Amino acid sequence: MPVSTIEWAGRLGGHVRMVDQTRLPLELAVIECRTVQEVWEAIRHLRVRGAPAIGIAGALGAVLAVQDSPAGTVEAFEDELRTACAYLATARPTAVNLFWALDRLQRTAAQHRHLGVLALKDRLLAEALVILEEDRAMCRRIGEAGAGLLRDGQGVLTHCNAGGLATADYGTALGVIYRAHEQGKSLHVYADETRPLLQGARLTSWELMQAGVEVTLICDSAAAEVIKEGRVQAILVGADRIAANGDTANKIGTYGLAVLAREHQIPFYVAAPASTFDLATACGEAIPIEQRPGEEITEGFGRRTAPHGVRTYSPAFDVTPARLITAFITDRGLLWPTFAEAIQRVLI
Amino acid sequence: MPVSTIEWAGRLGGHVRMVDQTRLPLELAVIECRTVQEVWEAIRHLRVRGAPAIGIAGALGAVLAVQDSPAGTVEAFEDELRTACAYLATARPTAVNLFWALDRLQRTAAQHRHLGVLALKDRLLAEALVILEEDRAMCRRIGEAGAGLLRDGQGVLTHCNAGGLATADYGTALGVIYRAHEQGKSLHVYADETRPLLQGARLTSWELMQAGVEVTLICDSAAAEVIKEGRVQAILVGADRIAANGDTANKIGTYGLAVLAREHQIPFYVAAPASTFDLATACGEAIPIEQRPGEEITEGFGRRTAPHGVRTYSPAFDVTPARLITAFITDRGLLWPTFAEAIQRVLI
Repeated sequence: MPVSTIEWAGRLGGHVRMVDQTRLPLELAVIECRTVQEVWEAIRHLRVRGAPAIGIAGALGAVLAVQDSPAGTVEAFEDELRTACAYLATARPTAVNLFWALDRLQRTAAQHRHLGVLALKDRLLAEALVILEEDRAMCRRIGEAGAGLLRDGQGVLTHCNAGGLATADYGTALGVIYRAHEQGKSLHVYADETRPLLQGARLTSWELMQAGVEVTLICDSAAAEVIKEGRVQAILVGADRIAANGDTANKIGTYGLAVLAREHQIPFYVAAPASTFDLATACGEAIPIEQRPGEEITEGFGRRTAPHGVRTYSPAFDVTPARLITAFITDRGLLWPTFAEAIQRVLI
Repeated sequence: MPVSTIEWAGRLGGHVRMVDQTRLPLELAVIECRTVQEVWEAIRHLRVRGAPAIGIAGALGAVLAVQDSPAGTVEAFEDELRTACAYLATARPTAVNLFWALDRLQRTAAQHRHLGVLALKDRLLAEALVILEEDRAMCRRIGEAGAGLLRDGQGVLTHCNAGGLATADYGTALGVIYRAHEQGKSLHVYADETRPLLQGARLTSWELMQAGVEVTLICDSAAAEVIKEGRVQAILVGADRIAANGDTANKIGTYGLAVLAREHQIPFYVAAPASTFDLATACGEAIPIEQRPGEEITEGFGRRTAPHGVRTYSPAFDVTPARLITAFITDRGLLWPTFAEAIQRVLI
């Protein structure tokens, strides 16, 4: 079982418990947040990261902010909640999941204002736990849908971190591996270190080791040789955004792996929830590619390793064309080609 | 023009001048070695690296050791030379080029012992400079042979460092780029950073900038996207060892680039001197693959970035099958498929 990234300890009057991801992989430090300020600080300083996990942290932080409210009227209570949510939203000003979760809590309060302050507090905690539970259930459905694709004794290559640390539970791509592992299948995962930010080295290899799954860390450039040597029988990655035709944006390096999978005739699977499919985007060419700062290449981790003034090019992700993808593993089941039809049929 | 990695300053009675590669890319420090001990130290501590450059350093170091010898007889002089060579050989106990160059100097002395001590000193310096000159001429012939393959305005992707820093002059793959640049062609080089040891970041990008060639540094995992975006029209790499059928061992990551070149229908060139072709090795399967220590992955940037105890797999190079190579650029001209025949015809 993977480590629990974030959870609520106790009932109303409890607090938030989370893994401090900035201390990984060298130390598993669990922090207990008892104030909304502590949650804000944890989000701000990336102690909790990954879109779903940040949303959950925001919702639980809002509960912390108001659970001991002395407000005598629902109006005063709603004011406090609004203030707390506005404050939490400033912790990561570009985190869409954070705003979404905070909005959801405020809508819940508005819909249940007839309950009165005390019952509203309970209702808000319940809603925050529903957000967490929905994420957990989503991970489990993905894991269940995909586990049958992996066979006992196989090697599996993964890239970046599509794991439990970014979610309330299993993760997406790693969720499939965890579920297959629970089914008693012996798997060996090869984890790309994933330059420039080394999510594979820092997070994926750590959480797989914690879960008791065999893992070998490799340089990104060694993946081709690992595949050529027959060490892996499948490649399994997550996704940042999937277009209506199945073209998939994911961490830089994913596209090259898909080409290698085709060359060596091994399956290439993408695991992602329905919410990652962006039906308003027709195809991969329409997905804008974010650029990362050059310092992540030239000063990898604290020490400069490239000439001053060198030009860099660092796209954050690449787009894998649908034709190179064997199947999507979603919380609504497996999608097989042709993807444009399968996506329309299952996700709308 | 690239920087001169190593040279002899003056005539007999002069000294060795070399770039301290351990200070690169942040500083261009030139060190002047006036004693054999200083040369030994420079080889030992990787101030000079790259097989050809190490051989040249060894030969020049041996000259330094004996140029002021007070020996009254040829026998005494040869004893001094033998002692100096045995000492220099301990600086990098696995450097084949070092032993080869030191042997060559001793054979030269044996062949010319009739000249007497004074003339022998001159003869040894001349021989060391011939070794340097042969390397320089080899680089120039490779550059000349390959430059015609590159066209004005093209982008070229390279991996690792097959450049001037490893040789007396131009380098191999980079020699082709330098020669095309001298011909007035405007090229843009994309340099893979080349994990785990970052030769692309530390050396290739530095020497191209020094030579006035436009260069952009990228993560290894971004190469596929750079190719897909149409930024490069050729891939050009060096080689560690080439089998009789053309299968080529080179820095880990090369094979994946060759697959991508084929997928995107751009040429994949390998630049190497005749001495890199190993006709005793029938094909790539017969080339043993050296493993690098895991710490280069887990503590790559001077700071640990992976969990303690994590398993690693770090092959130093991979083998690109001959069928993925467009042409070899050698000091005896271009070789085109079928390579088994071309190699036999040109290199034997």
